[in-house]
Amino acid sequence: MAIRCFAAKSKKEALVPYEYEPQPLGPWDIEVKITHCGICHSDISLIDNEWGISRYPLVPGHEIVGTVVSLGSNVQELKVGQRVGIGWQRSSCMHCEWCIQGEENLCLLQEATCVGHQGGFAESIRADSRFAFAIPDELDSAHVAPLFCGGATVYSPLVHHGITPMSRIGIIGVGGLGHLALQFAKGFGCEITAFSSSREKEEESKQLGAHHFISSVDKDSLQKAANSFDFLLCTVPTPLNWEEYLNCLRPKGTLCFVGAQTKPIEVPFFSIINGRKQVCASNIASRPDMNTLLRFAVLHGVQAQVELFPMREVNQAIEKVRSGAIRYRAVLYNES
Amino acid sequence: MAIRCFAAKSKKEALVPYEYEPQPLGPWDIEVKITHCGICHSDISLIDNEWGISRYPLVPGHEIVGTVVSLGSNVQELKVGQRVGIGWQRSSCMHCEWCIQGEENLCLLQEATCVGHQGGFAESIRADSRFAFAIPDELDSAHVAPLFCGGATVYSPLVHHGITPMSRIGIIGVGGLGHLALQFAKGFGCEITAFSSSREKEEESKQLGAHHFISSVDKDSLQKAANSFDFLLCTVPTPLNWEEYLNCLRPKGTLCFVGAQTKPIEVPFFSIINGRKQVCASNIASRPDMNTLLRFAVLHGVQAQVELFPMREVNQAIEKVRSGAIRYRAVLYNES
Repeated sequence: MAIRCFAAKSKKEALVPYEYEPQPLGPWDIEVKITHCGICHSDISLIDNEWGISRYPLVPGHEIVGTVVSLGSNVQELKVGQRVGIGWQRSSCMHCEWCIQGEENLCLLQEATCVGHQGGFAESIRADSRFAFAIPDELDSAHVAPLFCGGATVYSPLVHHGITPMSRIGIIGVGGLGHLALQFAKGFGCEITAFSSSREKEEESKQLGAHHFISSVDKDSLQKAANSFDFLLCTVPTPLNWEEYLNCLRPKGTLCFVGAQTKPIEVPFFSIINGRKQVCASNIASRPDMNTLLRFAVLHGVQAQVELFPMREVNQAIEKVRSGAIRYRAVLYNES
Repeated sequence: MAIRCFAAKSKKEALVPYEYEPQPLGPWDIEVKITHCGICHSDISLIDNEWGISRYPLVPGHEIVGTVVSLGSNVQELKVGQRVGIGWQRSSCMHCEWCIQGEENLCLLQEATCVGHQGGFAESIRADSRFAFAIPDELDSAHVAPLFCGGATVYSPLVHHGITPMSRIGIIGVGGLGHLALQFAKGFGCEITAFSSSREKEEESKQLGAHHFISSVDKDSLQKAANSFDFLLCTVPTPLNWEEYLNCLRPKGTLCFVGAQTKPIEVPFFSIINGRKQVCASNIASRPDMNTLLRFAVLHGVQAQVELFPMREVNQAIEKVRSGAIRYRAVLYNES
């Protein structure tokens, strides 16, 4: 039976109602009746073909929550009726060195949920059960949906860079990613500074977990923060003065980019050689990390702040995400 | 008694004979009669005031080997007559978090041997005994001198990035630093590729430890090496196409810069986010690393290939280093 959804017919266009015939249910596949789907900035990048990888008609949506309605013959870990989430990654080879060590997100043959496949702005989806994650009962569907991409994006680098309660970290940008990063960082028990160009976000940053706030447009404050941080997580897509932020790092500190930078990152040599600093980037999360993320979210009460839109208002929701007015993630829901 | 030496009187000038009155011997100080001193590229950067930190008259030289002739009252670890080496770092605060964890090379109050102090192009030097390292008998003075800066520069990142026999590493540039990096890497037991623009260095690279050679001016070879390396150590000071080298890294790979880059390093975002790669830099080495380096050099027979010049021919030696004609390190010696 055809799946009803919303698709961009070509680059930068508004989404329109669309239907497609799903592939036959493979042995590892499940069909999921979608209840909620977050809107990620990368959905908009795909609609606009910003990265040159989009294929149309394009059904965006990769922060999917729903209920399993069918199981392929091999699926044993999930049951019909179970609530699951699906994120950016759709599949991997399952054989390479990365896959066999639980780092499928580094597999060179990985596929994305809505690149060349239809995503979650839809009534249902067929997906590989091995990239669908059982959601603990404690987590609300609307608030957990954005954790499957946005949350994973900021949680994983905290894990892999060994953040501890002794770490001094900065979260650059308090938005869709940043407001989740603050909550996760709080759970890691570290000392947290929020950087934002919007002074009005100071109070909210502190409620989300920040101990300190620095206005990123205030040169003086940035200079005073020199040699203060072990780890800076940049969640904003815009080019900043990286030299200033590298100077904020302590020796052996790391500036880690998540989300996307549209321009090459200019790294002044003496900003990294003095103090042996590093610049890196991180995206999505492995399957083991997705599972610990969900337990972490239960334990520490991490949840996205969301604005809800019925699926039929997808274009209004996208416009609000584009304008930067969402506080802090938009989530679509299917009216049942 | 005044110390006779060679000094640059101002920026970019040839060195001239010079004398200075040394500071009184402090409690932790030693006086060293210099037998050998390597010429590092950074000596030339200092002579030219490339980094804006030079003070004139400037006595270069920070790859010093000599014999202890006097001891301050606190010095117990060294003896008169003992052979020691002194590198780039002259002192540190000895109290900060970095110093107390054996990472004095990250101390923010560290001082350099020939920045604001007189270096090793001299008959002798007074220096802090805690930054003078006893040289094992097995190591020849002329061949060990360049290990105190050039060697430390390439050895330390191999230690701190956890290079193992399973690592696949590339050494970019086969020169003063690169020929030492190849030897150290060989001792780590890893699989080594030398990158050089000079095809005639292939044979020598392999004698020094490389298993493979890639001509860095051959675009095809670089493209074929995509996804091949865990660690790339860039020893050349010139800007290359970093995107090509980042593409040569495997997932989680690191591009590490040693020596100096004169221009900001341009990092295309998608070159590091896909595969979670990192860019970093490293300079000098801690005191614990200096001591393990010397043991490592004995065990694995690491030694600089040197061209020897009597101290009075310092300007000819510098010119040969400037021209890039040295194979691979110039070392000055005092005629006794």
